[in-house]
Amino acid sequence: MTKHNVMKLTVEFGDCDPAQIVFYPNFFRWFDAGTRNFFAACGVARWQDMRESHGIIGTPLVDASAKFLGIVTYGDSIEVQSWVEEWKRSSFVMAHRISKDGEVVVEGREVRVFAGPDPADLKRIRAVPIPEDVRRLCTQ
Amino acid sequence: MTKHNVMKLTVEFGDCDPAQIVFYPNFFRWFDAGTRNFFAACGVARWQDMRESHGIIGTPLVDASAKFLGIVTYGDSIEVQSWVEEWKRSSFVMAHRISKDGEVVVEGREVRVFAGPDPADLKRIRAVPIPEDVRRLCTQ
Amino acid sequence: MTKHNVMKLTVEFGDCDPAQIVFYPNFFRWFDAGTRNFFAACGVARWQDMRESHGIIGTPLVDASAKFLGIVTYGDSIEVQSWVEEWKRSSFVMAHRISKDGEVVVEGREVRVFAGPDPADLKRIRAVPIPEDVRRLCTQ
Amino acid sequence: MTKHNVMKLTVEFGDCDPAQIVFYPNFFRWFDAGTRNFFAACGVARWQDMRESHGIIGTPLVDASAKFLGIVTYGDSIEVQSWVEEWKRSSFVMAHRISKDGEVVVEGREVRVFAGPDPADLKRIRAVPIPEDVRRLCTQ
Repeated sequence: MTKHNVMKLTVEFGDCDPAQIVFYPNFFRWFDAGTRNFFAACGVARWQDMRESHGIIGTPLVDASAKFLGIVTYGDSIEVQSWVEEWKRSSFVMAHRISKDGEVVVEGREVRVFAGPDPADLKRIRAVPIPEDVRRLCTQ
Repeated sequence: MTKHNVMKLTVEFGDCDPAQIVFYPNFFRWFDAGTRNFFAACGVARWQDMRESHGIIGTPLVDASAKFLGIVTYGDSIEVQSWVEEWKRSSFVMAHRISKDGEVVVEGREVRVFAGPDPADLKRIRAVPIPEDVRRLCTQ
Repeated sequence: MTKHNVMKLTVEFGDCDPAQIVFYPNFFRWFDAGTRNFFAACGVARWQDMRESHGIIGTPLVDASAKFLGIVTYGDSIEVQSWVEEWKRSSFVMAHRISKDGEVVVEGREVRVFAGPDPADLKRIRAVPIPEDVRRLCTQ
Repeated sequence: MTKHNVMKLTVEFGDCDPAQIVFYPNFFRWFDAGTRNFFAACGVARWQDMRESHGIIGTPLVDASAKFLGIVTYGDSIEVQSWVEEWKRSSFVMAHRISKDGEVVVEGREVRVFAGPDPADLKRIRAVPIPEDVRRLCTQ
């Protein structure tokens, strides 16, 4: 079974745009934070600490999408629920559900790959297989 | 025929994350800017000026998605090409293609609605039909 | 006596830059949130709700400054302590102290004015005297 | 004599907040970009390329400040003029002047240090003397 992580936050003035609502790229910012917090809650080390141990520098995106279902503005308290929907070899699908007062306001999905420095050119990155210990930590 | 807009920009240090590449929500920031610049290039007034004339305060999102095909980092010059792929009654599909050195690095789509203040509650917003003059300005 | 507000937050991956540390404009983002949360904690209404009652749309900046004393990176838990250091007629000085593990890492100051729509041109803003009830709510 | 760099940009919808004006931390974002573009215009290599050659990973901040003199909103074209006001051993003062239609709207100053990985702990950073070749490139 997959684990779920819930991150609570307050929407700030600076998260909103002249239409008085959340500037939408911020929802993806919260998806990204939701993913990192999911791994942290599962006990996976910071990427910067996994560079040496696992050759991993992060989980860059292949694909991201969101549906916007409700209005969110500053002062609102929201919850970002995040979980792994699917594990593949190097990639995985992260699902996110943002809710406000118990109502879903944004739903999203990120397809990510585990990436590390490319041995052929350390300034480049490449996909690496998902480490077995990481996957185990993320599953109940 | 639809018009196309091209926005050129340089990726900055602060647009990138600890993995040395663009923090992905910024691509959606550039999609959003691409949409606004598309309308500006077509001769559509700023939303803040259309509030009185058209009852419009912006074009909030219904849905957004992106595919990430290449690596972009700071110092890179990129082009954001934006056009309307489909017009509906209140909503429309905006397509974006970001390229670097002639190679496509990100492709995306935004489904947006034209929105104005809700007459029943001016602090809320609601979808309004796409103004005929706006649509005409955006079509060749 | 002035009240103090403390805001706790976790630094995220996307808050950091390619040097692996917080991209410094984010500290000002947290100052801004600290100011808003200070007013909220004191019982002052959202600016959007004070437009009608008080003719106020926010507290734009006149001056902002920060000293950076320590390293902050993602995964770090920080505290943003915010208080009013000085009240003037329309302006006030907001002080902020960000700490990590009990050590001060950033100190800052914002000089702000209370602003409302300019009656001569509603698309412009102008300074307004600090409302007596707002000031009273912010003082013990 | 010091060189000056001018960066032109258009303020976007997402750069503005619910008060319809630029969310002020973005001015510091543009200062940061102004600094990097200053170095790029002077012929200094990207920090990521100077890690090996000079042991430098960037120029983190010691101190930053800004005065906000005019209103800037989306659609506005602005110019960010940046130059080195003072060179010290490891640190330097970067001055920035942002103007709109020939009028100065923001003035700022950044005190920065040249930083590289700390040999005692490569995950930490420390100040390094300003490389002579970097300084020469930045002076006319």
